[in-house]
Amino acid sequence: MTDRVSDTSSPIGLIAGGGVLPFAVADSLTARGLKPVFFALKGVCDPERVSHFPHHWIAVGQIGKVVRLLRAENCRDLVFIGTLVRPALSEIRLDWGTIRVMGQVLAAFRGGDDHLLSGIGRILERDGFRMMGIKDIAPDLLMPAGCLTRKTPDRSAAADIAKGLDVLRALSPFDVGQAVVVIDGHVIGVEGIEGTDALLARVAQLRAEGRIRTKAARGVLVKAPKHGQDLRYDLPTLGPQTIENAAAAGLAGLAVVAGNTLVAEPQALVGKADASNLFVVGLSA
Amino acid sequence: MTDRVSDTSSPIGLIAGGGVLPFAVADSLTARGLKPVFFALKGVCDPERVSHFPHHWIAVGQIGKVVRLLRAENCRDLVFIGTLVRPALSEIRLDWGTIRVMGQVLAAFRGGDDHLLSGIGRILERDGFRMMGIKDIAPDLLMPAGCLTRKTPDRSAAADIAKGLDVLRALSPFDVGQAVVVIDGHVIGVEGIEGTDALLARVAQLRAEGRIRTKAARGVLVKAPKHGQDLRYDLPTLGPQTIENAAAAGLAGLAVVAGNTLVAEPQALVGKADASNLFVVGLSA
Repeated sequence: MTDRVSDTSSPIGLIAGGGVLPFAVADSLTARGLKPVFFALKGVCDPERVSHFPHHWIAVGQIGKVVRLLRAENCRDLVFIGTLVRPALSEIRLDWGTIRVMGQVLAAFRGGDDHLLSGIGRILERDGFRMMGIKDIAPDLLMPAGCLTRKTPDRSAAADIAKGLDVLRALSPFDVGQAVVVIDGHVIGVEGIEGTDALLARVAQLRAEGRIRTKAARGVLVKAPKHGQDLRYDLPTLGPQTIENAAAAGLAGLAVVAGNTLVAEPQALVGKADASNLFVVGLSA
Repeated sequence: MTDRVSDTSSPIGLIAGGGVLPFAVADSLTARGLKPVFFALKGVCDPERVSHFPHHWIAVGQIGKVVRLLRAENCRDLVFIGTLVRPALSEIRLDWGTIRVMGQVLAAFRGGDDHLLSGIGRILERDGFRMMGIKDIAPDLLMPAGCLTRKTPDRSAAADIAKGLDVLRALSPFDVGQAVVVIDGHVIGVEGIEGTDALLARVAQLRAEGRIRTKAARGVLVKAPKHGQDLRYDLPTLGPQTIENAAAAGLAGLAVVAGNTLVAEPQALVGKADASNLFVVGLSA
């Protein structure tokens, strides 16, 4: 599983934002004999947890500092990982390395979060680094194919899954629709930019209002990566919270395209799904 | 415009629920020398306004009574018009005419609102009546082609409209997606079963949260009837409230497929759109 990493003797740089994922990746690397080095974003990455790993603190905008530190650590492979709220311009600490490439950074900044990260990624790649995705460095954190839970989809749920995949396929040319909710053959909700949690909250609300008339524990959330999404920078993520929201929406389960979706805390996720009698299925891509 | 009505001497039966539309239809018929007779649903249809027209009061479930009254009034053409909240079973007043066709009514009831109405429509058609749509009896209330407002779509809005239509076309096989919001080429929101107002409220919310970064007065709501929708029973409707919600969502305007969408109060709608500097465009189907 480590054949995509250039050199197991040189450490892998984790440019780390918030949340639990950077540490899950670091643990996965360590378990496979690889060495993580954190480049932890100030005010975002968890200081207590990062203290257990080799790390440096950086601020957004310090591309020159990052490049210097990466070279000093002999890192060639890099990954961006963790949540990053778009920083206010006033929080950005510019350094000479950044000012040198300012034109490209500003162009990326104007393009939205995904483009900001991939823009900075391109700049770092021109400096000789290799931008990796979780898929490359920690494939064990990706959604596997098959059913993870005690509960499995019945025939009605299988039909809802097939319909949901059809809808996502139809939407894939439009850079929209990572997720859809189908209940008893009816397409109830389609995700725009609001995110999967907001979609599930909407379904819960429609149930509370009596707008969904089928009984609870029916219907499926079907989730797939967007067509053309650069999965090194923006991997769809599934966590215990997704299960809670799907249970609140009265669904029977979740079906997620395998291999391209990150599972934030797999044990907690499966435990919660079993406790709520929901199925979680990885679909072969 | 009256050639689709069987006989101008016999009155047209309006089985009328709530809202302003039944009266707009009645006014349209009267203006063209046709005679409306209301079969007004108790507790739903506005008693004050219906008092200005020939009318009978009916309760949900009284198919036998409706058939008797329709024959007494010499009505052959019927239309269902106005909002109808799904009644509680306890509110339904059954009569012998209904009990005779109970099996079909219950089957229709289980299928959801659209199917309930079209199921009852089929029963009435077997009794020799002709179910009409607004398209047939009051085509002047439908969205016309062309721009209704002082403001017209600029090049960016025209591109957003084209993209929105593409998305709705891709979704049309799935009985979903009467509306979509596109801003600067990005598909921001897709309507599921929550309705156009809820979609626009979501876009307003995403703007308030800073998740939409383009400035206000950009982007378009694009609206089309669902593929396979029986337009005699369930016509997409546009009203002044839609304009208010689109303005609150910070959009530049609305583009609506012409001919199949009902405009509830056209003057109020255009007045509000002009006051809010929004465009409203009817797209040739």
